[in-house]
Amino acid sequence: MIKRPFDLLNNLVGKKVEIGMKAGKIVRGKLLAFDIHMNLVVENPEIVEENSSKSATHIFIRGDSLIYVHPLQE
Amino acid sequence: MIKRPFDLLNNLVGKKVEIGMKAGKIVRGKLLAFDIHMNLVVENPEIVEENSSKSATHIFIRGDSLIYVHPLQE
Amino acid sequence: MIKRPFDLLNNLVGKKVEIGMKAGKIVRGKLLAFDIHMNLVVENPEIVEENSSKSATHIFIRGDSLIYVHPLQE
Amino acid sequence: MIKRPFDLLNNLVGKKVEIGMKAGKIVRGKLLAFDIHMNLVVENPEIVEENSSKSATHIFIRGDSLIYVHPLQE
Amino acid sequence: MIKRPFDLLNNLVGKKVEIGMKAGKIVRGKLLAFDIHMNLVVENPEIVEENSSKSATHIFIRGDSLIYVHPLQE
Amino acid sequence: MIKRPFDLLNNLVGKKVEIGMKAGKIVRGKLLAFDIHMNLVVENPEIVEENSSKSATHIFIRGDSLIYVHPLQE
Amino acid sequence: MIKRPFDLLNNLVGKKVEIGMKAGKIVRGKLLAFDIHMNLVVENPEIVEENSSKSATHIFIRGDSLIYVHPLQE
Repeated sequence: MIKRPFDLLNNLVGKKVEIGMKAGKIVRGKLLAFDIHMNLVVENPEIVEENSSKSATHIFIRGDSLIYVHPLQE
Repeated sequence: MIKRPFDLLNNLVGKKVEIGMKAGKIVRGKLLAFDIHMNLVVENPEIVEENSSKSATHIFIRGDSLIYVHPLQE
Repeated sequence: MIKRPFDLLNNLVGKKVEIGMKAGKIVRGKLLAFDIHMNLVVENPEIVEENSSKSATHIFIRGDSLIYVHPLQE
Repeated sequence: MIKRPFDLLNNLVGKKVEIGMKAGKIVRGKLLAFDIHMNLVVENPEIVEENSSKSATHIFIRGDSLIYVHPLQE
Repeated sequence: MIKRPFDLLNNLVGKKVEIGMKAGKIVRGKLLAFDIHMNLVVENPEIVEENSSKSATHIFIRGDSLIYVHPLQE
Repeated sequence: MIKRPFDLLNNLVGKKVEIGMKAGKIVRGKLLAFDIHMNLVVENPEIVEENSSKSATHIFIRGDSLIYVHPLQE
Repeated sequence: MIKRPFDLLNNLVGKKVEIGMKAGKIVRGKLLAFDIHMNLVVENPEIVEENSSKSATHIFIRGDSLIYVHPLQE
């Protein structure tokens, strides 16, 4: 059950998520870790920008850049 | 009765709300949880941007991205 | 008498106000509550944007989005 | 004599000032009060934007929106 | 000798300076006072914007709006 | 294993990374050091902007400018 | 050896550096001093903007405006 917002993030560790960032960047991949500043690490991220897309083995996203996180259907 | 702004958010837990975010993004759905940083979790969100709309089972919204919250007529 | 800025906000509780927000959004309605972060709740708000206007029963406005508050002639 | 920046604001209470705000908004009127966050209250403000001007009996300006304050010749 | 950045500001009190602010505004005049938040007071400022220039007897500049300060040859 | 986001940064010290910054600037090079504010130092950076690219022996990047860090295949 | 990001700044005191600032401004000159807020003082700065360049005897740069610092070949 979700009583506090961070309960959702806890539930999403190990799951595939979409992360919306400032300036329209989107990252999709498996959420590995987060902290109270909302810094995140995502595994096998697909990094999508307006006209391009790339991948990496991991990505560290600074919490300050983050707008939303939601689960992706697997 | 609403004496402090957070009283309204307390009243809205479990209700359908509209959330206005920076850069014009709007989220509509059932408010599940919020914290003092105004981080929110919404169930079954409809996520509306200028030219597109999508849905998810849940969404975590970072408080820093939030502009307003208001109830939706059900 | 107004000795500190928050004295004006205290005087405006229960009165009709206009609230100017970042990105040009304007909210008009009865001020119900505010806190030291300048989070506000407005009753029966009219929410005005560049090309549109809508209403709600209440609205929670995040203090960080706020630019000014002034009374409206009733 | 002005030894610290806030000495000037103290001298300006009760005087007519111009307040420059983010996004080019300008407010002119009598400075009634300010606090350490630079929240201000102005009496009989004239609120000037790019293509419009309006007035009110009082206005509360959030310190975070403020760029400068200077006295106006009376 | 300048060991810490604020040593330069101390040296500039009473001298003519140029202050660069966000959004391209520039203020030139005699630096009267500053504080640790980089709030400044300038005497007889010339306030220069893209297409206009004006003057005042004094100006209070909020530290948060400031980008740089440098001395002007007198 | 990555339990906290900073674990990834620890693993990346001494490796080649890409750093995404605000306003679209990208830096690629060997990560030498970081701190809790996410200030970084990169060795032999390639600094890429929209229409230009340059290099240096080292670069200090202010944490506040940072959006993401990910490893580069070597 | 550089173990923490500020070690690089310490090494650069007295050397010629390039400083990248928000809104694309660039300052080049000898780094004289910095503090933990990343406020800097540069001697004999060349201040470069999109269409112009100027110089001064010294410049104080507010840390909040800073994006990066790197050494210049001398």
